Amino acid sequence: MRPDAAHTVAVLDAVRGKGPRVHCLTNSVARAFTANVLLAIGAVPSMSHEAPEVGAFVENADALLVNLGTLDAAMRAAMMAAIGAAEARGLPWILDPVFADRSAARAAFADELLARQPAALRLNEAEAAALGAGNLDAARRVGTIVAQTGEIDRISGPHAACDVALGDPLMRQVTAMGCALGAVIAAFIAVSDNRFSGVCAAVHVFGAAGSLAGSRAAGPGSFVPAFLDALFTLDAASFAELEKGR
Amino acid sequence: MRPDAAHTVAVLDAVRGKGPRVHCLTNSVARAFTANVLLAIGAVPSMSHEAPEVGAFVENADALLVNLGTLDAAMRAAMMAAIGAAEARGLPWILDPVFADRSAARAAFADELLARQPAALRLNEAEAAALGAGNLDAARRVGTIVAQTGEIDRISGPHAACDVALGDPLMRQVTAMGCALGAVIAAFIAVSDNRFSGVCAAVHVFGAAGSLAGSRAAGPGSFVPAFLDALFTLDAASFAELEKGR
Amino acid sequence: MRPDAAHTVAVLDAVRGKGPRVHCLTNSVARAFTANVLLAIGAVPSMSHEAPEVGAFVENADALLVNLGTLDAAMRAAMMAAIGAAEARGLPWILDPVFADRSAARAAFADELLARQPAALRLNEAEAAALGAGNLDAARRVGTIVAQTGEIDRISGPHAACDVALGDPLMRQVTAMGCALGAVIAAFIAVSDNRFSGVCAAVHVFGAAGSLAGSRAAGPGSFVPAFLDALFTLDAASFAELEKGR
Repeated sequence: MRPDAAHTVAVLDAVRGKGPRVHCLTNSVARAFTANVLLAIGAVPSMSHEAPEVGAFVENADALLVNLGTLDAAMRAAMMAAIGAAEARGLPWILDPVFADRSAARAAFADELLARQPAALRLNEAEAAALGAGNLDAARRVGTIVAQTGEIDRISGPHAACDVALGDPLMRQVTAMGCALGAVIAAFIAVSDNRFSGVCAAVHVFGAAGSLAGSRAAGPGSFVPAFLDALFTLDAASFAELEKGR
Repeated sequence: MRPDAAHTVAVLDAVRGKGPRVHCLTNSVARAFTANVLLAIGAVPSMSHEAPEVGAFVENADALLVNLGTLDAAMRAAMMAAIGAAEARGLPWILDPVFADRSAARAAFADELLARQPAALRLNEAEAAALGAGNLDAARRVGTIVAQTGEIDRISGPHAACDVALGDPLMRQVTAMGCALGAVIAAFIAVSDNRFSGVCAAVHVFGAAGSLAGSRAAGPGSFVPAFLDALFTLDAASFAELEKGR
Repeated sequence: MRPDAAHTVAVLDAVRGKGPRVHCLTNSVARAFTANVLLAIGAVPSMSHEAPEVGAFVENADALLVNLGTLDAAMRAAMMAAIGAAEARGLPWILDPVFADRSAARAAFADELLARQPAALRLNEAEAAALGAGNLDAARRVGTIVAQTGEIDRISGPHAACDVALGDPLMRQVTAMGCALGAVIAAFIAVSDNRFSGVCAAVHVFGAAGSLAGSRAAGPGSFVPAFLDALFTLDAASFAELEKGR
């Protein structure tokens, strides 16, 4: 199935109206862009990542992002503390196992976190292969929504699946696009009663903004401001424009 | 009172002429944008933050920024070393207690640093409440200039106060705008004999660039390059344009 | 001598075709921009910098960048591990001794790494003075290519030298331009049989994109997207346009 534009816009408007706080434990390359993407959709980012302090930030948040890029021992400790605080409060958290395919230690840590049952998982094909189909199936069975991005983005949960065929090739030429999508998924889950439809709406918004920005950009440099502007202004008319352009 | 455009342009031109070096101990989300804002006004940023090395950088600097975002133990140690080096040289330093309202430990550290008498303090309403009116009054009495930003920015010192009603709502949709203002205040204080008028000029420049960029931007993405361009090109004619637009 | 545009475009096309992986140990201010510059030329960045993990990333890479900005003990350990892994595989690595002129400890560490014979060295005039002419001459004799950037960029190896007089004054108003050039040099060396001509081509591409972006930008803010777009689209026609504009 494909996501429904009216539903997607309704969830986006809920994000804009409620301004969910998303605490991000994410890699140092992606931090500024992730914060700007969250602000562009109306969410409120925070990024503190010291273990003794992270609990207080998670207490004040509506969702948590755990992204494994540029890991170190201090960040791993902060992640364990943050996930513990999220579990204690029933807060949804999203796992993004960046580059799990490049390092066996990274893949092992990703598997360990996956067993803690994140609300959603964002990864690409190579990272999915590193985690293993068996582990992903097990995660889906206990309710984790898996968003595997690529030329076509595939969202799958325990009972349903959804495809998004939007976006632009320039998105592969901009750093941290996938990382920022993980944060958007966190913001959308924070305002959604149904996690699966929340993740579908997040991926739909992200792809639509990518398509619109791609049609206005002269390269990956001008793509970035166009993408943030598109996230900020996206509405029902934008989706109608995209439908017409097919 | 409102700041005087002619005075503000004179201080901005002094920054451009002298190129003050601003050493920044700031959070990892804000670093690149802060450096680009400083370069756009003609100042020279450095960002090293290892305790054993930070003294050498402060020795070579004209002002120091201490921003409490994404704190950890190593950064706190670097801050104590840097403030010590600044005090030894009589170098002005600026405190920005980011998110002091989100963590009690953060607020306590901010109060500890405030007692060391920074030249200026940059914060928003929530952070001011976390520090407490009594502590802010005490800081003002010993000469710290307090710049509280919001829809109207209010600058107050021991003997005077000044308001700036410029800027654009899009500034709230871009990460690290407040953090970057702290760095601009540091650069302006470095070239000003009168700290209060230096802080007023810094906030005036920042708000004016924000107003100009807002009038040219289609969203938070295009706002950022427009803002940096406006800082780079700002002159007396820009302020005249803003006056006419009221 | 000046670099040849046809050769430069051929090396750039090789980068685009092969997509070399460049592992970057670089400062926290430069990371996102460096990654975007590498992606714009068709290379693939990674940035993990924890000592126990860095070996696995270097194993999977085609070149390594070692940039000394925002150093700390953990990063120094990661650098030693990464250089060891690069030496074991015969992988080229590039040294960028950022701000070696601001701290004696930094300059000493830069000298220590220089003795490990990087494939190339990227620095400016002040950093070259901090390292010392004798050390640079010794490095050139054992084969390190030295790229000293400034108003005119000078590339020198054991047997040849080359000048590039391109770029734009706005490049000095944008943070991490030099740092990003170090990463581009790494990507170009990864696809070049002749390291000297690879470094010349890298500096040539960077300067040409800078000239083109400068002619389109209204300030340092609009320069950045224009620069990334220029890197992405640069071809023989771009060099012809630059020749005509002289």
